[in-house]
Amino acid sequence: MKFYDCLTAPSPRRVRMFLAEKGVTLETKMVDLANGEQLTDTFGEVNPRRTVPVLELDDGTKLLDSTAICMYLEDAFPDPNLMGRDPKERAVIAMWQRDIETNGTMAIMECFRNSSKGFRNRALTGPIDYEQIPALAERGRQRVRHFFAELNFRLSRSEYVTGDRFTIVDITAFVAVEFSRAIKEKVPDDAAHLKRWRDAVGARPSASV
Amino acid sequence: MKFYDCLTAPSPRRVRMFLAEKGVTLETKMVDLANGEQLTDTFGEVNPRRTVPVLELDDGTKLLDSTAICMYLEDAFPDPNLMGRDPKERAVIAMWQRDIETNGTMAIMECFRNSSKGFRNRALTGPIDYEQIPALAERGRQRVRHFFAELNFRLSRSEYVTGDRFTIVDITAFVAVEFSRAIKEKVPDDAAHLKRWRDAVGARPSASV
Repeated sequence: MKFYDCLTAPSPRRVRMFLAEKGVTLETKMVDLANGEQLTDTFGEVNPRRTVPVLELDDGTKLLDSTAICMYLEDAFPDPNLMGRDPKERAVIAMWQRDIETNGTMAIMECFRNSSKGFRNRALTGPIDYEQIPALAERGRQRVRHFFAELNFRLSRSEYVTGDRFTIVDITAFVAVEFSRAIKEKVPDDAAHLKRWRDAVGARPSASV
Repeated sequence: MKFYDCLTAPSPRRVRMFLAEKGVTLETKMVDLANGEQLTDTFGEVNPRRTVPVLELDDGTKLLDSTAICMYLEDAFPDPNLMGRDPKERAVIAMWQRDIETNGTMAIMECFRNSSKGFRNRALTGPIDYEQIPALAERGRQRVRHFFAELNFRLSRSEYVTGDRFTIVDITAFVAVEFSRAIKEKVPDDAAHLKRWRDAVGARPSASV
């Protein structure tokens, strides 16, 4: 297996953190997104969509989505379990994973890519150029504020996002909260449960890789 | 188990079609979204997010996302397999599922909810009201055209979306293509592979439930 990673983007960080929790090190190629390495012909042969992470399997199959990559890694390296130990827990984790991606990760990305000067004409990832939509940046910011409030509420009722143990959803949510710095949106001072959880997850060795 | 369904919305249709492929009938409650039944106090107790589908398990756990619901049903009713028979196939299917949802389903929804008069002030599902963004409706339509072209290309290389057999991704993609009628966007006349596949999937009994 070969892992295409990048230190400056949130999606590959999710996979990197997942691997660190498993205690696994894969052959890794760093892709320098900040300097446009994803636009080179060499990387185009790896992934014509120009995105990371990519997990290339030994038979040449390429997995291009963080959650799909983690599903594969969960099967290859089952301990510690991060995606569910029985059908019900697997489904609950998949539901939260989708929820945090849609209402957290994507809301932040919506604000970031539609307002940052560096993404002018690049409001969506992928091979097509799309103009920024300022109203969408503003809506994304509103959604991020709501996401923080919802996450704080959720964490007032359980230690981790999906229940009483650390799972992949805590990785997804933690990376999203960290990524909100890119849009200069801070976790509100009174979000005590969210801060308690952020400090706990941030103290794990996997948060520093 | 109890399934909360709706005949006029694409997400519950995906679960309905998945169940029909499995040959399974669950206790079902139809929710009349067109007349606002999701806004009643009764449904609010089922799902405060006001969305369908919902799968309520016998212990009261509620699954609120189509893919998470299908994961649970795949475990409960393994034949025929629709989500992958080994770790690699499961990961490839999860990757395509995410791709079709993001670039197909969500693009159509983006156009629909940001342009339809019936969704004024309701540009996103969920409990919060968001104003429509006309530029986002237009961008959604461009993305849908690109989605059709990409799907046609993919189906020029394989019989079904993920390979040589019918999977959950064909359900997701078929329901998206059908849903594109809501924004009056037609599959292009020259998209022969997409049409061949649409006719084949549309002829399955599960497409009519």
